[in-house]
Amino acid sequence: MATFVLGSGSAGRRMLLENAGLSFEVLPARVDEAAIRADFLRAHGADELPLLADELAAAKALEVSRRTEKPVLGGDQILVVDGEVFSKPRDMEQARAHLRRLRGRTHHLISALAVAEKGEIVWRHRDAAAMTMRAFSDVFLERYLAEVGERALSSVGCYQVEGPGIQLFERIDGDYFTIVGLPILPFLHWLRGRGLLPA
Amino acid sequence: MATFVLGSGSAGRRMLLENAGLSFEVLPARVDEAAIRADFLRAHGADELPLLADELAAAKALEVSRRTEKPVLGGDQILVVDGEVFSKPRDMEQARAHLRRLRGRTHHLISALAVAEKGEIVWRHRDAAAMTMRAFSDVFLERYLAEVGERALSSVGCYQVEGPGIQLFERIDGDYFTIVGLPILPFLHWLRGRGLLPA
Repeated sequence: MATFVLGSGSAGRRMLLENAGLSFEVLPARVDEAAIRADFLRAHGADELPLLADELAAAKALEVSRRTEKPVLGGDQILVVDGEVFSKPRDMEQARAHLRRLRGRTHHLISALAVAEKGEIVWRHRDAAAMTMRAFSDVFLERYLAEVGERALSSVGCYQVEGPGIQLFERIDGDYFTIVGLPILPFLHWLRGRGLLPA
Repeated sequence: MATFVLGSGSAGRRMLLENAGLSFEVLPARVDEAAIRADFLRAHGADELPLLADELAAAKALEVSRRTEKPVLGGDQILVVDGEVFSKPRDMEQARAHLRRLRGRTHHLISALAVAEKGEIVWRHRDAAAMTMRAFSDVFLERYLAEVGERALSSVGCYQVEGPGIQLFERIDGDYFTIVGLPILPFLHWLRGRGLLPA
């Protein structure tokens, strides 16, 4: 019996929640993320960038909650480096450019969740992880891109830490679930508080 | 081309290293872990318990390195709670008893790695994660055990955080790779330093 709706088409978020033993439906949100992002960046400074993840998560949850009576979980993850937000790379050339920018420095992955019910946000959570890439060589970079191929395009950082992407890193400080885009412990806590999961 | 040998039959450690894109052989160690553990506990106090993980990892690496010229990675993970070491549960009844002991408190997962070459330890690493279980109900515990079944017997804590085991927790402080039993970043660093992995 589905107790909530995941308002996201992300295969990663879906698998994470399924693996945790939760029952839910999936209704991907129909929001113009690029427009929300552009509006946000016009109105806010670099120190407010983490709020962009909140805004995108909330927009997704709200849109889907207009189509169901159940609580809707929306989620978003952004990558911030030196006061700039990275989007998912559109092609391998951009993935290469992103990884060149990211190597030898620390970026932050910011993951936000929002639950909407009947058109209102009823719960929010945000967490960040600090990811320090090592100063890998161009030779390493080309081998990496050849190995992972199009999978580099499926995440904002061009990597999966649970795959060969771990070889890009020198140091990782943060929660695994935040890194993969869904800080699950606080969401489980919320579900239990709402009586949607046994305590 | 295999650059090292994993001296462990653990499916989890093998998968972790494979997912990271490493090439290696597997030669499970033949050591009497129970005897090493019993000797250790006779000779050491509760504050030295983390060293038991080091000793087991080193014993495994050393034993296998007598059968190969390649560097051998040995690994071990122990669970410490209130100055006591838990072993893997031998049956579901013991898993139930362990989880009753662990709920509502913080335990530590201690993961150790050792590399042996030609009968000598050439590298060591140890890390710990603090795992706080919530005070879940007996009803929850029985549902959990029914859901995971024999999988509860495959880890010292009777859980996999990447599965329904995450529902047992209130808070987790520590590196994901330490929690799953193989702190991989320092090992990758060692492999690169030895020229066994491209930099």
